[in-house]
Amino acid sequence: MPLDEKSFVPLYYQLTEELRENIENGEWPPNSLIPSETELCEKYKVSRGTVRQALSQLVQEGLLYRKQGKGTFVAEPKITQQLNRFYSFAQDMREKGLRPSSLLLQKEKILPDSYIKNILGLKEEEMVYKIMRLRLADEEPLILETSYLVEELFPDLDKEDVEKVPLYDIILKKYRIKITRAKETFEPILIDEFEAKKLKIPVGSPALLVKRVTYTAGIPFEFRKSVVRGDKCSYSVELI
Amino acid sequence: MPLDEKSFVPLYYQLTEELRENIENGEWPPNSLIPSETELCEKYKVSRGTVRQALSQLVQEGLLYRKQGKGTFVAEPKITQQLNRFYSFAQDMREKGLRPSSLLLQKEKILPDSYIKNILGLKEEEMVYKIMRLRLADEEPLILETSYLVEELFPDLDKEDVEKVPLYDIILKKYRIKITRAKETFEPILIDEFEAKKLKIPVGSPALLVKRVTYTAGIPFEFRKSVVRGDKCSYSVELI
Repeated sequence: MPLDEKSFVPLYYQLTEELRENIENGEWPPNSLIPSETELCEKYKVSRGTVRQALSQLVQEGLLYRKQGKGTFVAEPKITQQLNRFYSFAQDMREKGLRPSSLLLQKEKILPDSYIKNILGLKEEEMVYKIMRLRLADEEPLILETSYLVEELFPDLDKEDVEKVPLYDIILKKYRIKITRAKETFEPILIDEFEAKKLKIPVGSPALLVKRVTYTAGIPFEFRKSVVRGDKCSYSVELI
Repeated sequence: MPLDEKSFVPLYYQLTEELRENIENGEWPPNSLIPSETELCEKYKVSRGTVRQALSQLVQEGLLYRKQGKGTFVAEPKITQQLNRFYSFAQDMREKGLRPSSLLLQKEKILPDSYIKNILGLKEEEMVYKIMRLRLADEEPLILETSYLVEELFPDLDKEDVEKVPLYDIILKKYRIKITRAKETFEPILIDEFEAKKLKIPVGSPALLVKRVTYTAGIPFEFRKSVVRGDKCSYSVELI
């Protein structure tokens, strides 16, 4: 399809769609060098400004990446998380052939504020463990995750090695607590300074904020906030 | 909880969390004026820069909004879409007590590119209807939506009034095609110029790109791309 100059849809937007499709249909395979700006100007008969605007958009979305002095390349497809069943990061990465790892950033017992108290149905003086971890796949940071777990249900949780052993394995095997249900909410956010540093992406990059409440037999035992890199991850669901 | 100056978590990040909780637990109700920057500096014992950084973050996320010369206010809670069953925008807004409407931006018969052809399983010469609409609730634009529908299944679809009648009603009632399944993918993106103008939000705002493939009896008949305002909408799912 040639671009339509008379359309009310701006040219850069039409071009973004065209280039996106080159990537998504495999014409431009992962890690291949894409044509130069000059070549794209000629092929699509548009100005350099239009080409630059379209390429920037696709870089921001994580479909393309730039290598200084080498050009623009096609990114690997995003890691897609299926939402039709309960999932754990470590298990899911392994199923996708990636090596999961965790970096512990913070682990402490705190008195939660009223927001977390409400979610977890806690009384005035009840404490929670706060565990902040960076989750990586093949050494690349993907998710900045903060879990709040009811202390009463998990005595001595701070003594567990939550870098080496998956948290849900500890919960099931040590504490004999079975996950029966979880509720997740998804919102798009922009990465701030702290998150940018940890996730190794620029400030202002698009990300998903995923909030999870995890239940055992109707009782909420965990509240979790995950900041998920948008250039690397997506979520998918079947609706029936 | 007082802010912890010794923590490796920066003060502005801790403050953002504190303020977010004031909103989420209802201490600061929707449309109320929040305390001034000076008051927040005094209450949390932090610099004006820290307060500004935290407030900007919450404005970007859509939890707060600014009124020129009047101060910073708490936004209405986001409209949350449940992902546990098939949903239609119009029906869902009505169930939430909001008045849905649509603004038709583009309606034409086109030869799709290979990306859309693959998704819809079309042969070389098969055409699709492209329908681009702005979806509004109570007159406020929320979603910029582009649907591609297989022409062969929907002859004369361009003669239907897709502003007034919900598209899925036309599909069911006029064409007798029942939706049996849909698959959706979610990715965070930044709003570009064109989308910003249509959705009436600043360029670079966080949004969700939702891609849907809709099936009848195993046959894909629609591919849809929705750009959803992140400051107004969120999605939620139950995992079992």
